[in-house]
Amino acid sequence: MPLISYIQDLEPAITPEGAERRVLAFGGSLMAVEFRFEAGVKAPMHKHPHEQIGYVVEGELDFLMEGKDPVRLKKGDSYYVPSETMHGVIIYSKTTLLDCFSPLRQDFLS
Amino acid sequence: MPLISYIQDLEPAITPEGAERRVLAFGGSLMAVEFRFEAGVKAPMHKHPHEQIGYVVEGELDFLMEGKDPVRLKKGDSYYVPSETMHGVIIYSKTTLLDCFSPLRQDFLS
Repeated sequence: MPLISYIQDLEPAITPEGAERRVLAFGGSLMAVEFRFEAGVKAPMHKHPHEQIGYVVEGELDFLMEGKDPVRLKKGDSYYVPSETMHGVIIYSKTTLLDCFSPLRQDFLS
Repeated sequence: MPLISYIQDLEPAITPEGAERRVLAFGGSLMAVEFRFEAGVKAPMHKHPHEQIGYVVEGELDFLMEGKDPVRLKKGDSYYVPSETMHGVIIYSKTTLLDCFSPLRQDFLS
């Protein structure tokens, strides 16, 4: 299990929407994952048992979550997604998101 | 409890080392905290029961952790700190770190 990792060394996975997904670091009950999106990408509404907290490293997007109005996010903004809560994004410009999950996304490690 | 928060609206706390600390978002067992450091700051070795995972939004630093050699980190690098593990930083240029903690840092909310 890596204690410190470097995205420069990692080959990304490509999501069904065409985003690049890199698992950066993980351990115990925490995992950090970087997503890179091109403008125009939409990540459809989805949910998972993991809690998620995200940070906009760069870019501009609408963040969608069930029970909430869409919110326009930009560099430096953040969001929290409770367990089993539907959420998605609409990307307006080249965007990098840093998402932390708890517990680990084992589906990202296989 | 905010589901989505905006750092633009938040007054930072100032740490003993002079870093700006902003709690960005939290819920359940996750919290995202942004730290901004000026060049030359050193955060002394410390530990806490919370697991921590961090991401270098910008800047350059040495990341120190007990049992590991110091590692030079820069934009896009990340690190994982197990519970109760001593760690610290030496900042070389103006740096922004995004740290996620589990469970919540209640000491950052008081």
